[in-house]
Amino acid sequence: MERFFSPRSVVIVGASNRPFNLGSTICSLLKTVGYDGAVYAVNSSGENVAGFPGYPSVSEIPFEVDLAVVLVPARHVPDVARQCAEKGIKNLIIESAGFAEEGAEGARLQSRLDDIVTSRGTRYLGPNCLGTLSSKDRFCCFFGVSSGSTLIESIARQGVISYVIQSGGVAGLVLESLQSDVEGVNKVVCIGNKADVDEADLIDYFEGDGTEVIGMYLENVPRGRKFYEAALRSTKPILVYKVGRTREGVLAASSHTAGMANDNRIFETACRQAGVIGLRSVSELHALPKIFTTMPLLRGRNVAVFTNSGAFGGICADLLVENGLGMAVLSAETQSKLKKAGHLFNAANPIDLGPGLSKQTYLDIYEILLSAPEVDGLLPITSLWQDFIIDSLVDLGDLCRKYAKPAAVYVPNAIKKVISIRERRGVPLFESPEEAVRALAVSSRFWEAVHSKRSGKIGGKHQGARVKASRDTRVA
Amino acid sequence: MERFFSPRSVVIVGASNRPFNLGSTICSLLKTVGYDGAVYAVNSSGENVAGFPGYPSVSEIPFEVDLAVVLVPARHVPDVARQCAEKGIKNLIIESAGFAEEGAEGARLQSRLDDIVTSRGTRYLGPNCLGTLSSKDRFCCFFGVSSGSTLIESIARQGVISYVIQSGGVAGLVLESLQSDVEGVNKVVCIGNKADVDEADLIDYFEGDGTEVIGMYLENVPRGRKFYEAALRSTKPILVYKVGRTREGVLAASSHTAGMANDNRIFETACRQAGVIGLRSVSELHALPKIFTTMPLLRGRNVAVFTNSGAFGGICADLLVENGLGMAVLSAETQSKLKKAGHLFNAANPIDLGPGLSKQTYLDIYEILLSAPEVDGLLPITSLWQDFIIDSLVDLGDLCRKYAKPAAVYVPNAIKKVISIRERRGVPLFESPEEAVRALAVSSRFWEAVHSKRSGKIGGKHQGARVKASRDTRVA
Repeated sequence: MERFFSPRSVVIVGASNRPFNLGSTICSLLKTVGYDGAVYAVNSSGENVAGFPGYPSVSEIPFEVDLAVVLVPARHVPDVARQCAEKGIKNLIIESAGFAEEGAEGARLQSRLDDIVTSRGTRYLGPNCLGTLSSKDRFCCFFGVSSGSTLIESIARQGVISYVIQSGGVAGLVLESLQSDVEGVNKVVCIGNKADVDEADLIDYFEGDGTEVIGMYLENVPRGRKFYEAALRSTKPILVYKVGRTREGVLAASSHTAGMANDNRIFETACRQAGVIGLRSVSELHALPKIFTTMPLLRGRNVAVFTNSGAFGGICADLLVENGLGMAVLSAETQSKLKKAGHLFNAANPIDLGPGLSKQTYLDIYEILLSAPEVDGLLPITSLWQDFIIDSLVDLGDLCRKYAKPAAVYVPNAIKKVISIRERRGVPLFESPEEAVRALAVSSRFWEAVHSKRSGKIGGKHQGARVKASRDTRVA
Repeated sequence: MERFFSPRSVVIVGASNRPFNLGSTICSLLKTVGYDGAVYAVNSSGENVAGFPGYPSVSEIPFEVDLAVVLVPARHVPDVARQCAEKGIKNLIIESAGFAEEGAEGARLQSRLDDIVTSRGTRYLGPNCLGTLSSKDRFCCFFGVSSGSTLIESIARQGVISYVIQSGGVAGLVLESLQSDVEGVNKVVCIGNKADVDEADLIDYFEGDGTEVIGMYLENVPRGRKFYEAALRSTKPILVYKVGRTREGVLAASSHTAGMANDNRIFETACRQAGVIGLRSVSELHALPKIFTTMPLLRGRNVAVFTNSGAFGGICADLLVENGLGMAVLSAETQSKLKKAGHLFNAANPIDLGPGLSKQTYLDIYEILLSAPEVDGLLPITSLWQDFIIDSLVDLGDLCRKYAKPAAVYVPNAIKKVISIRERRGVPLFESPEEAVRALAVSSRFWEAVHSKRSGKIGGKHQGARVKASRDTRVA
């Protein structure tokens, strides 16, 4: 699998200097991002592309090649695949479209491709995909990325989130959104029709490549059992946005990446049992991973809400309960410490601070709450009345690590201001109270899943149901 | 009621030149925004404030006064209220805190105030509130607004949304958020403990003051029957975010604006029956009204999804169905027209456009869809591959008005770019596919409510239940 992300040499089959040629955009991209392996182009005239040597066919390249990226019309793909196999190339990325997503004839072509490739021990990504991105390796074979694209920044900014995304459009959206957030990516894989390599293979791979959180956008899960078992083995948080929750969604997605109707309830049950976290919106794909990368896990459900803007206490109390968490009941001792720390309108949870005098007042309150045994995590909703409040949020991360408890911060300002503070100060701000509460909820859910997996009680009290599911039910 | 928003003269009781004096911030604000009525200040030394004449008491003002804004310590408020009544001032805004939200003693004070005021035919807002804003009248009596505040822009930008908000913090957030959106406000009222004037009075008032959409943030609804009846009379869309959906939320809110535990299920049922739209997040308060102010209503549930970025077809199909809407089934005729208009990957709904050649291709497709009898509304999810796509979205509004069908547009870009396009080009963009679908859903729900009210079938087929509710049930 490693060669899909960090090949020592790669050939782009179908890259030429003709106008609108997509292969050439990959050559240019590899040049721009500073990929340091060898790059070859294959086109009918054997011409060089973007300064990389060109050949009329794969077999005529006089060097060893780790990875072939294929962008020729679908009907030529089986032949190219055969040549690649004969050349000894063990990894293929078939980006060409025109396979199973286009009906019966395309499906036959896809099955022919499958026979050729897999019989020779080659692994392939796609067809109908964008392929891979690895920030560490400065490698990316997405086609159509223009030189001014924000994607290039994404590659430059290494991080620990890895994504499996069954759509180039969604991958672009997630990467663009992350640029205004605090975390970068490790790997991104756009798997398209995933005839061979699929999300389950990648879950296994991400176990040992520096990935800390896995985000997935899936339009179908044809190998449900394989997915379930990989998820069960994984020790990382796996966050999945799944299309096809309704009959209409399945139908719409099938024209895009050739999905089949899965029973979504079975998928959801399997996810719950394997500790996979289902996402509620596309934006959660970029917004939620930071609760894992910047904060300790929420090891309980008792949250303290701290605000200097009264209304948000009530708003968050509702949201916490609706998300399966609870309002921590503060001890008399904690409340008395809080009252000494600042002028409070309310010392019981939600803690409502009046005019705060200094950064230290805020830090004192954070520390009192984080050190209280009855508090598992913190939800600070702080209006930025003074600049020192932002400074206090910058220091909050250290306190969270000291007490091994998370904080999910929201500042009640327009999204524009929230993003600008996040960008300038690196504070892992969420964009709404709903999102901050959701982050705590998924952190807690993951902790519970880890706990269940360790103790062998996966799915907690539903163990019986799980065993039944894995014995009798074909997941998907 | 009119005098709360456009008084010809106003006195700020408690405005002085002492440091941290809140009343003086109102005087300065009225100066900054260019309010053209008379302003007086009352303080113990009778000094002028921000250039406005000062008096030692209300009774010593030698002119007629329409409105008194009161910001003295709670214990002095009943006396001031009496003086105002004797002076013949018919409208009071009591901004001082320290009443029912602070326990039994405060509640007694509030009840004393109530007796004094209402026995003389005076109406009052508050206590514990920020009061009113009217953009048309360039009037705002919110305290604590600094001269650089973004609120000042909000007053300068007239619109047709009016808000009733039981929290200054939430009002600030909504107004700040609207500044990056396409619509401005007409009136904003922060009602605090709403001992006298409440949300129901304001619903009635907004019927004839140029308001087109009503947004509400409520922490409690103590006069449920009155609210229900006002909502039933109203012909405007009423969007309500309600805190206190859980026991914990009620508890938290009660320390803020003195709410009592209402049965939230009864409130929700009453809302449904009166055609009130319940909001799911705080951000919907600023995000959803634009579907009413910029677009015709969705008079049916059949939506056509148009995208040039395949994945969003499936994402939106799921979301539409989950929000009670459906995918329009396109006739053979419509599909054949579409195929002639451009290179389509899919001509059935979702319509998936390949490389688009010109703005006209996009406009043609919008028009084919909007003119099709089987389509009630449009959900365009357009990646901005070329600049002319934004131009086509600018023109889309005219087509929607021509065919009296709405479009809710989302562009799959990071929020930062979405907002910048909305600001520069005035296109009513939503910030996520979820929000765009929600906008269509609330538009449809309002249309159904209007239809039911007109035909006397409020609540549609649940008429029996409604009659029962209004006869037997005390709402809240």
